[in-house]
Amino acid sequence: MAEVTRQRLATGLIAATLTPLRADGSADTALLADHCRSLLERGCTNIVLLGTTGEANSFTVPERQSILTDVRSKGIDASQLIVGTGCCALGDTIALTRHALALGVARVLVVPPFYYKKVSDDGLFDAFAALMEGVADDRLRLYLYLIPQVSGIDLSISLIERLQSAFPTQIAGLKDSSGHWPGTEALCRSLGDRMDILVGTETLLLRALEAGASGCVSATANVNAARIADLCRRRNDADSAALERSVNATRAAFENYPMIPALKAWMAMTSGKQTWHDVRPPLRPLSGEETKALMKVVDESRSFSGGGQT
Amino acid sequence: MAEVTRQRLATGLIAATLTPLRADGSADTALLADHCRSLLERGCTNIVLLGTTGEANSFTVPERQSILTDVRSKGIDASQLIVGTGCCALGDTIALTRHALALGVARVLVVPPFYYKKVSDDGLFDAFAALMEGVADDRLRLYLYLIPQVSGIDLSISLIERLQSAFPTQIAGLKDSSGHWPGTEALCRSLGDRMDILVGTETLLLRALEAGASGCVSATANVNAARIADLCRRRNDADSAALERSVNATRAAFENYPMIPALKAWMAMTSGKQTWHDVRPPLRPLSGEETKALMKVVDESRSFSGGGQT
Repeated sequence: MAEVTRQRLATGLIAATLTPLRADGSADTALLADHCRSLLERGCTNIVLLGTTGEANSFTVPERQSILTDVRSKGIDASQLIVGTGCCALGDTIALTRHALALGVARVLVVPPFYYKKVSDDGLFDAFAALMEGVADDRLRLYLYLIPQVSGIDLSISLIERLQSAFPTQIAGLKDSSGHWPGTEALCRSLGDRMDILVGTETLLLRALEAGASGCVSATANVNAARIADLCRRRNDADSAALERSVNATRAAFENYPMIPALKAWMAMTSGKQTWHDVRPPLRPLSGEETKALMKVVDESRSFSGGGQT
Repeated sequence: MAEVTRQRLATGLIAATLTPLRADGSADTALLADHCRSLLERGCTNIVLLGTTGEANSFTVPERQSILTDVRSKGIDASQLIVGTGCCALGDTIALTRHALALGVARVLVVPPFYYKKVSDDGLFDAFAALMEGVADDRLRLYLYLIPQVSGIDLSISLIERLQSAFPTQIAGLKDSSGHWPGTEALCRSLGDRMDILVGTETLLLRALEAGASGCVSATANVNAARIADLCRRRNDADSAALERSVNATRAAFENYPMIPALKAWMAMTSGKQTWHDVRPPLRPLSGEETKALMKVVDESRSFSGGGQT
């Protein structure tokens, strides 16, 4: 691994938080702030607010702004937040990014505009350059968001390098949620000495850290933060193999279902707050039977390494 | 073809209009209204405003509302417009649909929420049901928008039937831009007697009309309206074969490039208004060389059936 002289801006386990809803479908920001606090207490270094797991794109721009405003005002520090601000329309991405900066949140996670497919690297470069120009704030620290199985948009290493050359202060890193190890490894080895590569699943965590990644942004952290954070700290020590197997088994239990409804079902069952089940369309809550089956498999996955910390 | 007793709400050639930009990147609604007028004069029965070809999702909700307001106020009649209102966030789709209705535009084209992929039919049903409830207006006439190669979302025949059963007045039809004849044929034959199936390319027009479609929504109508409208009227008469070959050759010329920039390049070259070249990121204008090559092939495609009408 190349020597890292730059400052890493995000390391360790970062939780991609769910967004709990009220019965009327609006975001329950009091419960969300409590959940963020709990994630930080269980070992997460930072929270990604309003990412894919947070159903960001199912909320309007004013709703997204209110959610961030509320979470900040309910005591979650700007230094512990990374907020998703990527939209299809450049004007929306600019508005959300400026709003985050106005609240002191410098780190944003930006999915490329995702309506049109098969767009060129030049077109994607234009989109990010126009964002930089529209935001016009040197405090900005932007994480590019690679999640091709959802966005339909790939980010090539040459595009990422070109963006960092053009905006060396502002491009802080990349979240790689492709889940595809050869691609992740190439990103870590090519770019890990220059920017924070954050791998989107704990199942690739140890390998990614070894290859130069800074940390992991995990959806499963919502339900398994303590163990994943522990794995992150221990890395490849003598006892980490059993822990890694357990962490991976828990992840696999959730991946067996649509991930976001499954995570919310687990939250509902363990907290007793039934509204945790709710998702915004086009997502659908897990059925009672699915929830029961999920809970059983998750319990079993925990027993792999003993104990019941979440 | 089954006997059609219902009223068809959209027939013939419908243009999916481009959205011209000003030098500052905002929509040039004066030029847009003129262009819509010209498309109607050249034989289009209706205009789809702010569809995929109109770069709808590259505009914010307030921008989309302004564009429609301006086009209406510049004299394009509500009865000649179908407006694209589909967004990822339900609140945005509701706001745009209500705005259209407030301006007398009852017909909207709604792409399903397109951020999440592999969503269930139940989840998509929920999304459209929540839209109906949020809009709460019996005047609404909604066209479902099937464009899986862009949205990543399929619409099954059983989902479409379920939606029409639940909302028989409001579900007016479906725009099928899949470009996949077996699927289009199945939609026409299954649903063409109950709703307007609008095929998304004139290359399938004659076959689709034969199978029960109501008409065609075409991007290429921006540059070839008169001939496509002529083909629509003549259907399979004695002389239509040469015309169809020419129309298809013109379409193929544009499909050789990213479609929207290519259509805009043609508009710039033929109108002399250079701003027609401009697109919003992540799209990119055609280069000078590409434009020159495109114009040549388009010219050749026109000569197939003589004359130069556009």
